Amino acid sequence: MSFHERLLDAIDQKQAPICVGIDPMYDHLPADLKTSDQPSPAEIIDAYFDFTMGVLEAVASIVPVVKFQSAYFEQYHAEGVEAYFNLIAEARAMGLLTIGDVKRGDIGSTSSAYAKAHLADIEPGESDSDSIRDDILDPGETPDAITINPMLGIDAIEPFVQRADATGKGLFILVRTSNPGSSDFQDVKLENGLTWSEHLAETLQSRVIAPRIGRSPYTSIGAVVGATQTHTMKSLRGRLPNSMLLLPGYGTQGATADMTRAAFDTNGRGAIVSASRSVLYPKAAPGETWQAAVRRAATSMRDEIRRVLDQASN
Amino acid sequence: MSFHERLLDAIDQKQAPICVGIDPMYDHLPADLKTSDQPSPAEIIDAYFDFTMGVLEAVASIVPVVKFQSAYFEQYHAEGVEAYFNLIAEARAMGLLTIGDVKRGDIGSTSSAYAKAHLADIEPGESDSDSIRDDILDPGETPDAITINPMLGIDAIEPFVQRADATGKGLFILVRTSNPGSSDFQDVKLENGLTWSEHLAETLQSRVIAPRIGRSPYTSIGAVVGATQTHTMKSLRGRLPNSMLLLPGYGTQGATADMTRAAFDTNGRGAIVSASRSVLYPKAAPGETWQAAVRRAATSMRDEIRRVLDQASN
Repeated sequence: MSFHERLLDAIDQKQAPICVGIDPMYDHLPADLKTSDQPSPAEIIDAYFDFTMGVLEAVASIVPVVKFQSAYFEQYHAEGVEAYFNLIAEARAMGLLTIGDVKRGDIGSTSSAYAKAHLADIEPGESDSDSIRDDILDPGETPDAITINPMLGIDAIEPFVQRADATGKGLFILVRTSNPGSSDFQDVKLENGLTWSEHLAETLQSRVIAPRIGRSPYTSIGAVVGATQTHTMKSLRGRLPNSMLLLPGYGTQGATADMTRAAFDTNGRGAIVSASRSVLYPKAAPGETWQAAVRRAATSMRDEIRRVLDQASN
Repeated sequence: MSFHERLLDAIDQKQAPICVGIDPMYDHLPADLKTSDQPSPAEIIDAYFDFTMGVLEAVASIVPVVKFQSAYFEQYHAEGVEAYFNLIAEARAMGLLTIGDVKRGDIGSTSSAYAKAHLADIEPGESDSDSIRDDILDPGETPDAITINPMLGIDAIEPFVQRADATGKGLFILVRTSNPGSSDFQDVKLENGLTWSEHLAETLQSRVIAPRIGRSPYTSIGAVVGATQTHTMKSLRGRLPNSMLLLPGYGTQGATADMTRAAFDTNGRGAIVSASRSVLYPKAAPGETWQAAVRRAATSMRDEIRRVLDQASN
């Protein structure tokens, strides 16, 4: 089954087009997980592992997919990277779909190496050649999909697309990000009247996505569109009719459920709203455990998105 | 001493504005380093380590700086990442400046985490807050500079710039890449007549680089401009007067020494030409060791660049 089919099934099953972003930050961890005021890297990684396991257990029955932010693990070098891949395997074992938020992007054989690193497990005997061998197509520890950066061009994206095709995995290509400064280089107007992000979306649709349309209206080539960017969402939704849109920025970054409505198709499908800090670090009520607070935050986010989609369908 | 001062001194000392890119590929390794036709990941990593050490020893007296391509190590997950950082420490111990070619880019606190991961060692007690603490400013195992992707905007770049400032390290920001498809999104014309890369260069110069100009005409905020892109090089050189330009694409990708001339200032400074496969994997002459062939390839590249710069100065 392709990634987009697995994702659509999981969203239907949980009636929740939402994603929880795993962004562990030591300063924000629940007090009982902070073993020290001056923790060693090993102590921090252990705390991240325990925290993430607790979050996964709290949300596994509520959300279809979780997104792991590589940077927070990568900053602890090899040990952090080991924790990142181990936690992805744990999430998969709980029946969750996983997105690796790695935002990688390079050219040629370097893109192929990144694609192998983040979409396919390393198996003995795989060479570094670009050829994709059947014996490494076990999904294993690597996520079901990753985010990638398209700035370098279509030929730079192709190795990721080929690896996703060969492994039945997915991509979410950055098209319009959720930060205030995203307008600096993504909103600039081209001489043809399109913004740079609109040109990017149209180029991806015609050269990468359209050739991959199958029975489903959606493909495994999704796009990241910041939920904070309501002025661009309708335009990008229209230009990427066969992409699942991943919408970061909900909650702490300021996006509301109503702001995400334009990213969904009329059938209420085609988008996933992602939140990190607002779900990971809620204020616990008196007597409430931190895991119960996380569960409550994820549930209320789900209900908010459901409310908006129900309104839209009425 | 800031990164650009250390880089300029190293280039002067070796009279060689060149960089060797460390892109280990098992298929291309010298026969005596290939222990197996079906190597395990551990065997591949060991071979990469031995190969890289051999290359570093061969070129250390010829080139001022080496660039490590993270992807080829990252594809072996934690063990590969450990080798990447260990080899950077080895290169530093040989007196080489090091660039981590990681092309990272994200937003806010995630950019801060990437900057910490790749520009500053992790020290016990550093929290995940954005505050930069003196006790983590030891350069240690992390490279002297990294490449970053600017697509997400100036606010997304700022955490990298702040970390580079605080650690005396450098950045090479992707402005125009060396791949054929780089024209898809980097050469598009804006309504103001500039290409997207030119707009990017002007925005970086005015908002990031100009405020950091000191005694030297150069700053520690460099730019990556593909050596294959002669039609853009003059324009980008002019728009980034205070940046060292890192020029990938020499050799295997097709750029010649003459094609790089426009990237250098009239004084023959301001650029570094980078080559990977053409220096790493030369055809050894009969009776020549692979390390001697690597040394010969690096020497002839240096002499070619010198020839072009001498012509330019006459």
